[in-house]
Amino acid sequence: MLPATQTTDFGAEYLQARLVREFALAKHIGVSVESADDAAVILRAPLAANVNYKGGAFGGSLYSLAVLTGWAWVTRYLATRTFSADAVIQESNMRFLMPVHGELRACATAPDDAQIDKFRRMLLRAGRGRIALRVDLHEEHSPAAIFEGVYAAAVRRREEP
Amino acid sequence: MLPATQTTDFGAEYLQARLVREFALAKHIGVSVESADDAAVILRAPLAANVNYKGGAFGGSLYSLAVLTGWAWVTRYLATRTFSADAVIQESNMRFLMPVHGELRACATAPDDAQIDKFRRMLLRAGRGRIALRVDLHEEHSPAAIFEGVYAAAVRRREEP
Repeated sequence: MLPATQTTDFGAEYLQARLVREFALAKHIGVSVESADDAAVILRAPLAANVNYKGGAFGGSLYSLAVLTGWAWVTRYLATRTFSADAVIQESNMRFLMPVHGELRACATAPDDAQIDKFRRMLLRAGRGRIALRVDLHEEHSPAAIFEGVYAAAVRRREEP
Repeated sequence: MLPATQTTDFGAEYLQARLVREFALAKHIGVSVESADDAAVILRAPLAANVNYKGGAFGGSLYSLAVLTGWAWVTRYLATRTFSADAVIQESNMRFLMPVHGELRACATAPDDAQIDKFRRMLLRAGRGRIALRVDLHEEHSPAAIFEGVYAAAVRRREEP
């Protein structure tokens, strides 16, 4: 249970504030949280700050949006389960299938229940856990890029400030 | 042979101009070309625009610098061999080994001669080629991240503007 003083649902507004506060680049590339719930987190960014010489989205911007979308999913999971823990990216693979010529939009979908449960049990038992997430980016209705990342989370020790 | 009117060596100054002109994000993250020759291309960026909540470099910024470093290597290769061709990233893997707390610095080293020759022959024969590049990032003298990317290049058709 969340403490009674906890009014946030750790949704879009909560993640938006954290993204902009915690990543200098997030504000510049114009990241905004479209939606966030247990099933998926969706982040967007306008093309202008992220455009390349071909008039499409720069691969580094697509990656940045994708890695933040995965981070947001993990961060929301940790917060809703009252884990006081930070998540960092450990390893990632990204495939670029076609150019993105409009708004950038990335969707992280929840892993299956067995993976989530393993992650939760590792955090409870060892104070550390790893979880693999997939993030999809589209151009219109076609897949444009697929990001697969492994995030590591570590519970903050009490003696830390 | 380069045409007699060609005064550039396609080195650091040439790549710096192209990076800033062709990628909106490159200027914002403060990319600068440290050196560029046949053996390696090295790009740098200051921490400030790229910092995360832990005081380290954001993974998306490290990726952006790495993917641009590989792009710069391929773009320089194409220019020095007088290929009128553009390079784009197709697939990439990035492993994060330790945080970067100072300046970001990425080094793309030339693939072995057989790989380069295969790339050259594909461009000549089919007007298209793919080449795999490795980019290393360090924190002090220790490896901090390893990027491996496959770039595709296509010779521009003459009827294009």
